[in-house]
Amino acid sequence: MKAAVLMAPRSIKLNERDKPIIGPEDVLIKVKAVGICGSDLHYYEHGRIGDRVVRKPLVQGHECAGMVVQVGENVKNLKPNDRVVIEPGLPCGLCPTCKKGTYNLCNDVLFLSTPPNDGVLKEYLAHPAHFTYKIPDHVSNEVATLAEPLSVGIYAAQKLQLAPNSHVVIMGIGPVGLCMILAAKWFGAKTISVTDVEPFRLEIAKQIGSTHGIQIREDQAVHSLDYHAEMLGGYDCVIDTTGKDEALEWAVRLLKRGGKIGGIGFPGKV
Amino acid sequence: MKAAVLMAPRSIKLNERDKPIIGPEDVLIKVKAVGICGSDLHYYEHGRIGDRVVRKPLVQGHECAGMVVQVGENVKNLKPNDRVVIEPGLPCGLCPTCKKGTYNLCNDVLFLSTPPNDGVLKEYLAHPAHFTYKIPDHVSNEVATLAEPLSVGIYAAQKLQLAPNSHVVIMGIGPVGLCMILAAKWFGAKTISVTDVEPFRLEIAKQIGSTHGIQIREDQAVHSLDYHAEMLGGYDCVIDTTGKDEALEWAVRLLKRGGKIGGIGFPGKV
Amino acid sequence: MKAAVLMAPRSIKLNERDKPIIGPEDVLIKVKAVGICGSDLHYYEHGRIGDRVVRKPLVQGHECAGMVVQVGENVKNLKPNDRVVIEPGLPCGLCPTCKKGTYNLCNDVLFLSTPPNDGVLKEYLAHPAHFTYKIPDHVSNEVATLAEPLSVGIYAAQKLQLAPNSHVVIMGIGPVGLCMILAAKWFGAKTISVTDVEPFRLEIAKQIGSTHGIQIREDQAVHSLDYHAEMLGGYDCVIDTTGKDEALEWAVRLLKRGGKIGGIGFPGKV
Amino acid sequence: MKAAVLMAPRSIKLNERDKPIIGPEDVLIKVKAVGICGSDLHYYEHGRIGDRVVRKPLVQGHECAGMVVQVGENVKNLKPNDRVVIEPGLPCGLCPTCKKGTYNLCNDVLFLSTPPNDGVLKEYLAHPAHFTYKIPDHVSNEVATLAEPLSVGIYAAQKLQLAPNSHVVIMGIGPVGLCMILAAKWFGAKTISVTDVEPFRLEIAKQIGSTHGIQIREDQAVHSLDYHAEMLGGYDCVIDTTGKDEALEWAVRLLKRGGKIGGIGFPGKV
Repeated sequence: MKAAVLMAPRSIKLNERDKPIIGPEDVLIKVKAVGICGSDLHYYEHGRIGDRVVRKPLVQGHECAGMVVQVGENVKNLKPNDRVVIEPGLPCGLCPTCKKGTYNLCNDVLFLSTPPNDGVLKEYLAHPAHFTYKIPDHVSNEVATLAEPLSVGIYAAQKLQLAPNSHVVIMGIGPVGLCMILAAKWFGAKTISVTDVEPFRLEIAKQIGSTHGIQIREDQAVHSLDYHAEMLGGYDCVIDTTGKDEALEWAVRLLKRGGKIGGIGFPGKV
Repeated sequence: MKAAVLMAPRSIKLNERDKPIIGPEDVLIKVKAVGICGSDLHYYEHGRIGDRVVRKPLVQGHECAGMVVQVGENVKNLKPNDRVVIEPGLPCGLCPTCKKGTYNLCNDVLFLSTPPNDGVLKEYLAHPAHFTYKIPDHVSNEVATLAEPLSVGIYAAQKLQLAPNSHVVIMGIGPVGLCMILAAKWFGAKTISVTDVEPFRLEIAKQIGSTHGIQIREDQAVHSLDYHAEMLGGYDCVIDTTGKDEALEWAVRLLKRGGKIGGIGFPGKV
Repeated sequence: MKAAVLMAPRSIKLNERDKPIIGPEDVLIKVKAVGICGSDLHYYEHGRIGDRVVRKPLVQGHECAGMVVQVGENVKNLKPNDRVVIEPGLPCGLCPTCKKGTYNLCNDVLFLSTPPNDGVLKEYLAHPAHFTYKIPDHVSNEVATLAEPLSVGIYAAQKLQLAPNSHVVIMGIGPVGLCMILAAKWFGAKTISVTDVEPFRLEIAKQIGSTHGIQIREDQAVHSLDYHAEMLGGYDCVIDTTGKDEALEWAVRLLKRGGKIGGIGFPGKV
Repeated sequence: MKAAVLMAPRSIKLNERDKPIIGPEDVLIKVKAVGICGSDLHYYEHGRIGDRVVRKPLVQGHECAGMVVQVGENVKNLKPNDRVVIEPGLPCGLCPTCKKGTYNLCNDVLFLSTPPNDGVLKEYLAHPAHFTYKIPDHVSNEVATLAEPLSVGIYAAQKLQLAPNSHVVIMGIGPVGLCMILAAKWFGAKTISVTDVEPFRLEIAKQIGSTHGIQIREDQAVHSLDYHAEMLGGYDCVIDTTGKDEALEWAVRLLKRGGKIGGIGFPGKV
């Protein structure tokens, strides 16, 4: 089968690879659509993220939708022709962290497209059936690739106990910020304010469901936000997706007493 | 090796069985001490608990302490000569219930000594290393067999959010009730009241840490409890280990407003 | 001013009463619309609910919307002409139960229209400003009287941690059951099944947002529910508004493992 | 009566003041012992903490134990000769923040000894009975003045959901840090590590219940902590009482995945 392989920074080649063979708990998936994550771009350009270094040719991509073409003998939850998305992080399932239900924090997680683990930019993927999920009929493969970033937003809303009627501000509305808007809407937020430096992002956010857009400029960002927060009596939740140093400082000031702060991003300096 | 096998109600024979062979994730345990659970007694006397019927010879026992004599090639958390206890319920680890950390509720749990699964009243047991735990040096094998019922008490205390300074009543102080006393003490309960029909149980409870013992008699049980609850301003937690129909009714009356009720027992009619 | 006074069971007279005088923390409300609670009906017909007995003429009604006509000197959150609803239970605000935020459980709550406290079926009501809330412009006075039963539904959803995507069943769809449907929708329930003996109630529930209606008949109620629960893989939440003895028993059987049960109703035998 | 009054930075005079008159909900307390808070010292030396400025003579002190000498007509929880401590922050009791039980965050809290509110370094104090608590017989007045800082530690333990068996590190062991040790012990911490620059503090901490003391020196603090955290497999809770900028950074590194961070201190720059 064909696979897109990162050979060196900014150099991807289409190589031949062996079609994977599935185990009894796996499904074989024909890959149909793949989202490109910020981390994929970073490895592509720099060959590393912090101390995670691409040391041998790497297949990238982990936001994957596809179709089941074969199922292992113990698989009960899926069958051939099911359209599916995958959970790209495979935890050990046995350590105390996994056992208590926080398997996203497993120290031994195997995460696709993080070196040295290959990702999904290839024709076929063998994946454990229990980390593979059916796509509803009304959702296309392309949209379904957003399942992973959307789940980040939903998880953040759960952790923040984002309640109906709350006032929320989301700082930075790249793809994860946009997914956070969807999650906040779903959890019943009354107002969803967003900030960004780019006017076109504010426009997209508005189409998706933000109620207030604040363009950040160097010299007055804080003042606009302060003014806005004051009008609403402070925010119940401040969610930062920018990772900027000043975000935490702003957040503390914009919150209602007893409000909550969430940060989404890559854990560690890049 | 030798195994104690339940052939029919009230009939146990010492048979030869094959010594188990371990897989790469397992340890082989030389069994040293086994606690006898109320469920073991029930199967022994009646050959069934509800619709769980002993249909073929059954090795009983699941409250097990022993010594590791061999470890599988992937095992890192244990080594030969470690003294250990086991978790007797082995969940699937993959279903949504397991993934979210409530694996004790897994529908596909394999529970030792529940038909048709053999238990531990035998010389050697092969068990997954990740459900096997080291015993601290100062705890004997015999005491360590209580790890499982004690963990029931600790789990109840966690679910009830039993807080330092609370007033707790435990109805029924068989082994699980006694373990509940230990858990309540550990979580900082200020008073631990206990009820039972048997004076000798009240005496044991007192030695372990109960602060008030109330002997239940048919004609005045409720009045004693009422009187006592009133003195304390109501209980923060009422924990029933008897499964009696009237317990829930009493519990509601004895609680502080906003207090919590817990029930521990065999889920289902016997 | 005029007040509707319950003189004896089934006998209400329109009497003259003194117009109330407000304190510095109160507002004077011109009553515009009053909902009739099941408890109002019960006092009207029987003159008592359990050990709460109407011993002197009683003004009934506590689901009240009106207009502010005067404010006390310390009132900052309201002004004349504001349309408002009231919280009909006035807690002491000082006891440990109030201090920890569960003031609905205050032992010294003064609840309007519960003997011996008068209710709101009168022209004017003096009420603490901090237990009086503005009505949004798009909500009529008549609809606003449902604020109190709706808040019961919302509180139940919060206590049950009713999460987006859950399967919910509501047993009994009188006014509180209907409000529970609205709350479940707001909290993102995926399916909302309802049961009742009356087909016309099932019809109303459907208009409001229930997804499945099950008519309960004596001989097959449980079977329909069982069948339905099985299809969905069990309910995440079972909420009973009927107070029937068998409801709790059904609930336990219909729940997913780890699911939650809620009961809404009058605390105590009637 | 006599009162110690801060007239200017570093200048306290013993003045005559009127003995306070109590309202119907108050008690009159003869002051017996007063603890000196870090905030008292700061006002004494600098005449301000941030934007809270001493603009007129101020009676300092809020960690107060005393004896009830008179009770208001509505007071039921206390009587003359009761030995008591006070809660020094008096919330409004009516705002949404108070109603939901987080009255420590009330925007309108009146905090004793914070300008312009007088404190307790005087012979008699009138205080609301519902914010006054009896001292157990075995606790002296002097020790009882620690009730307020101790409650800070207990609250932190509750917020952090500090669970039995956890590994805790407390950075900085001034009075609040020492109280945090007591709280951690009470909540069942397995190890309590503490850090400080002063060896004599580490010694006191050990007497109170810390299990490991780490002396911080400029050049190797982080390394000692890292080494220690690694031994324990990371901390479940990191609690900072120093307010140093680097503490948060260390905390993130020392935590187990999924661990919790708490900060105790004066909210805002000094």
